Amino acid sequence: MSQIQITNAFVDEIRVWIERELISELGASLELLFPADIAELFDELNLEECKYCLDILPSEKAVEVIVELKEDTRQNLLLQYSPEEIAHKFIEEFDSDDAVDILNELPKKVSDEIISHVSDLDFSIQLVSLLHHDDNTAGGLMAKELIKVNINWNLAECTEEIRKQAENVRRVTDIYVVDDHEILLGIVSLKDIILERAYTKVSEIFESNVISAQVYSPAEDVANLMSKYDLDALPITDTMNRLVGLVTIDDVIDFVKEEADKDYQMLSGISEVVESTDKIWILSRSRLPWLIIGLGGGLMNSFVIQNFESNLSMNLQLALFMPLVAAMGGNAGVQSSSIIVQGLANDTLGSTNVLPKLTKEFLVALINGLICSGLLLLYAFITGSPGGIAKVVSIALLSVILFASVIGTVVPLILEKLKIDPALATGPFITTTNDLVGLFVYFQIARAIL
Amino acid sequence: MSQIQITNAFVDEIRVWIERELISELGASLELLFPADIAELFDELNLEECKYCLDILPSEKAVEVIVELKEDTRQNLLLQYSPEEIAHKFIEEFDSDDAVDILNELPKKVSDEIISHVSDLDFSIQLVSLLHHDDNTAGGLMAKELIKVNINWNLAECTEEIRKQAENVRRVTDIYVVDDHEILLGIVSLKDIILERAYTKVSEIFESNVISAQVYSPAEDVANLMSKYDLDALPITDTMNRLVGLVTIDDVIDFVKEEADKDYQMLSGISEVVESTDKIWILSRSRLPWLIIGLGGGLMNSFVIQNFESNLSMNLQLALFMPLVAAMGGNAGVQSSSIIVQGLANDTLGSTNVLPKLTKEFLVALINGLICSGLLLLYAFITGSPGGIAKVVSIALLSVILFASVIGTVVPLILEKLKIDPALATGPFITTTNDLVGLFVYFQIARAIL
Repeated sequence: MSQIQITNAFVDEIRVWIERELISELGASLELLFPADIAELFDELNLEECKYCLDILPSEKAVEVIVELKEDTRQNLLLQYSPEEIAHKFIEEFDSDDAVDILNELPKKVSDEIISHVSDLDFSIQLVSLLHHDDNTAGGLMAKELIKVNINWNLAECTEEIRKQAENVRRVTDIYVVDDHEILLGIVSLKDIILERAYTKVSEIFESNVISAQVYSPAEDVANLMSKYDLDALPITDTMNRLVGLVTIDDVIDFVKEEADKDYQMLSGISEVVESTDKIWILSRSRLPWLIIGLGGGLMNSFVIQNFESNLSMNLQLALFMPLVAAMGGNAGVQSSSIIVQGLANDTLGSTNVLPKLTKEFLVALINGLICSGLLLLYAFITGSPGGIAKVVSIALLSVILFASVIGTVVPLILEKLKIDPALATGPFITTTNDLVGLFVYFQIARAIL
Repeated sequence: MSQIQITNAFVDEIRVWIERELISELGASLELLFPADIAELFDELNLEECKYCLDILPSEKAVEVIVELKEDTRQNLLLQYSPEEIAHKFIEEFDSDDAVDILNELPKKVSDEIISHVSDLDFSIQLVSLLHHDDNTAGGLMAKELIKVNINWNLAECTEEIRKQAENVRRVTDIYVVDDHEILLGIVSLKDIILERAYTKVSEIFESNVISAQVYSPAEDVANLMSKYDLDALPITDTMNRLVGLVTIDDVIDFVKEEADKDYQMLSGISEVVESTDKIWILSRSRLPWLIIGLGGGLMNSFVIQNFESNLSMNLQLALFMPLVAAMGGNAGVQSSSIIVQGLANDTLGSTNVLPKLTKEFLVALINGLICSGLLLLYAFITGSPGGIAKVVSIALLSVILFASVIGTVVPLILEKLKIDPALATGPFITTTNDLVGLFVYFQIARAIL
C-alpha cells in the first residue's frame, strides 16, 4: 500500500473498470490503497460504484474503509445491504466500540435486526450492553476488546492467553491484571512479558498503580484524565470495580476534536458542527439562528436609539461614535468569555471560586479600558475635536469595556453551573447583549454630560 | 500511587514537613502521587520548596514531574541548579525529544553548557542534531528513541535486541525493520513477535507498507497524516530514506491542541496563547492589539458617517439601524471565515480551487441574506414603519451579508497562499473592515433611494 493523491484521472480510471467489470484490475488497484484513501475515493463515486468496490475488498479491509467514511456516506452505503448482510459482512468484523457507533447511526429498527443476525452470541450481548451507554460517558467511548490475565498465572500462561485473545484485539501494549472475580488489580506491559522469564509470576512484576475510570464517568472527565496522565488507554470498571472495557486514545482524540470544533463554531456563530464541504442548505441552516438573533438584537438597538432621538437630533455628532462604542463592548466581552470557556474545556481553571477570577478580569478590563479611553482623548486633543463629545465617548468606552468583561466572565461560569454548555456565552448572543447595553450606557452618559 | 485532589490542607501539610525537614514523611507522601499531581502541587509551593521536594524524588520520577510542569515554573526551577547538575540529574534521564524541548526553553548559553556536561557522547550528539530542527517540523517533534531490527534477523535475535534497546524506550508497540544501511523497510508489531516462533525470520512476517514522513515535513502535515491513518507513531526518515526518529501520538496531540487554542483565541481577538491563570499584565497585553484595532476601526467608522451627515440630519431614522447593519456584516463575515479557517486546519477543504467554494459561500449568503431581509420587511410591514427606511435597511442587509461572506471566504484563502496564518482573517480585523464597508454601503443605498 502507498499513500496516493486521489486525482480526477484516477477516479475516472476506477469508473471505467467498474463499468467494464474488470474485477482483477480494480482489485489490484484498491489493494494498493490505504483504507483512508479508499474512503476518500468513495467521496467521488456514486453509491452503486462504492458498493461494487466494497464487495471486491477483503472483508478485513472493507470494514476499515467503512470506519473511515463520512457519516452520511456510510449510512447510505450500508443501507444498500440487508440487515443480515450487514451483520455477517461488516458488524461481526468490527471492534465492539466501532460496531456500536455504526449501529447508533442507523435507524433503531434496522440496528435491532442487524444485532439479531449476529451469529456470535457473546459479541451480540456485548453490543447490546454497549448500546445502553450514553455517547458522552466512558461507557459510550469504550470497547469490550482488551487482553486480561489472572494475577495467579505465570508469564508462560499469559503468553498462551494473549495468543488466544490477541486475535480480537488490533493493537496490544498493555495487559490488564484481574483477580478471580474480574476485579481490576493492575497492569503489565507487553514489553515486560517479553523481557522477563517464562516462569515469573504476574503478581511479581505487575504494576498495581493503575488509573481507571467508572463506566458512567462523563466522556469529558475521561479525556481530561488521559490527557493529564498521558495515557494511551484507560481501563473502565463497573461500580463493583470489575474490568468491563477499555477506552483508547484514538476514540478520545476524536471526542476532543469534536468538542473543540463545536466550541470554535459556537464562538463564530455557527450552531451545529458543519464542514465547508457540507451541503448548502445545511450550511445555511447552521448559520441562520445566530443571524436572526443578531437581527433581533439590531432591532432592539433601534429602540434604544429611538429613545434618545431628541439627544441625537440636538447633537448629531453622537451618531458618529455609536458603532465604535457598540463594537468595543462586543470585542471586550468575547475576549473575556472565550478565555473562560477555553479554561473550562481544558480543565485549567483550577478552583471553582468565582471572585478571584472576576477581580482579575475586572483589573485587566480596567487597564485596557483606561488605555483605550486615553488614546481616544489623545486623538480628540490632537485633532481638536469638540471636548464634550470626546468626554462622553471615552467615559462610555471605559464603562462598556468594564461591563462587557464582567458579563463575559460571569455568564459562562453560571452556564457551567447550570450544566448548560458555557460556549453558548461566546456566540453572537452575548455580543448582541453587549451592543445593546453599550449603546444604552453611551446615551445615558451623553444625556448626563451634554 | 493514586489520584488525589491537591487540597489546601494537603499543601499546608507538605509545607510543614519541608520546614521541619521531615524527609521520610515527605518522601512517603510524594511516592503516593502521580507525576502530574506533583506538578500540580508545585504550582502551590515556592521555588525553594519545589527544589526540596524534587531533590527527594527518585530521579526517574523527578524528570516525569519536570515534563508535567508549566513552562515558566519549569524554567525557574531548573535555573536553581547548575548546568552540570541539570545535565546529570535531569537531561540524561529524559527521552531525547523532551530533553530538547526543555533545552530550547532555557537561555542558549545555559543549554550549550548543559550539553557539554552530558556524559553519554552518543546522547549529546543526538541532542545537538535534534536542536537543529525547527519546532514546526517532523524533526522538531521526533525523538531519537525507537527500537529497530535488521531484516535478516530471526525473532530470537530480535528479542535479544529488544531486550538491549528497551531500556531506553518507555513504551513499545511497534518495532521498525531496516536494512544494513539503516534504510526503513517496514514494521513488525511486538504482538507478532510474541505470537510467532523464535526461528521465524523478520523478513517473513514484517509489514512492508509503512507510512513515514521526512524529517523536514511541516508538523501540521505530520499531524494530519497521523490523524488520517489513525497512527500511534510515525517513523521519520532523512532524505536518503534512512530511519532517524519517531514521532509519537502524545507529541502530536500537544501540537494539535496548541494550534487549536491559537486559532480559537485569534477568533476571539486575543493575540497570544494565554490561559486565564496567567498574570494580569500578560492577559492585558494579549488583548490590547485587537482592542486598539477596533478603536481605529471605530474612528474610521465615524469618518464614514460624517461624510453622510447631511443625509443623516435630513433623515434621523437612518441612525437607528446603523448598529444593525454593521453587526450583521461582522457576524456573517466571521461565520464564513471561521469555517474556511477550520477547514484549512483540519485539511478537509479538498482541492485548492477557490471558485466552487466561493460560489457555495455566495449561495449560502444569498439564502440567509434573503431570509433576513424578508424578516425585516415583514417586521416593518407589521409595525407600519416608514417604507423608505425599511427598503434601504433590507437592501443594505442583503448586500452586506453577501459582501461580508465573500470577503470572509477569500481573505483566509489568500492569507494561506501567502503563507500567513489564515486565522488572522477571523479576528476583529476583518469584523472591523466589514463594519466599515457595511456602513458605507448602507448610506450609499440611502442616498440613492431616499
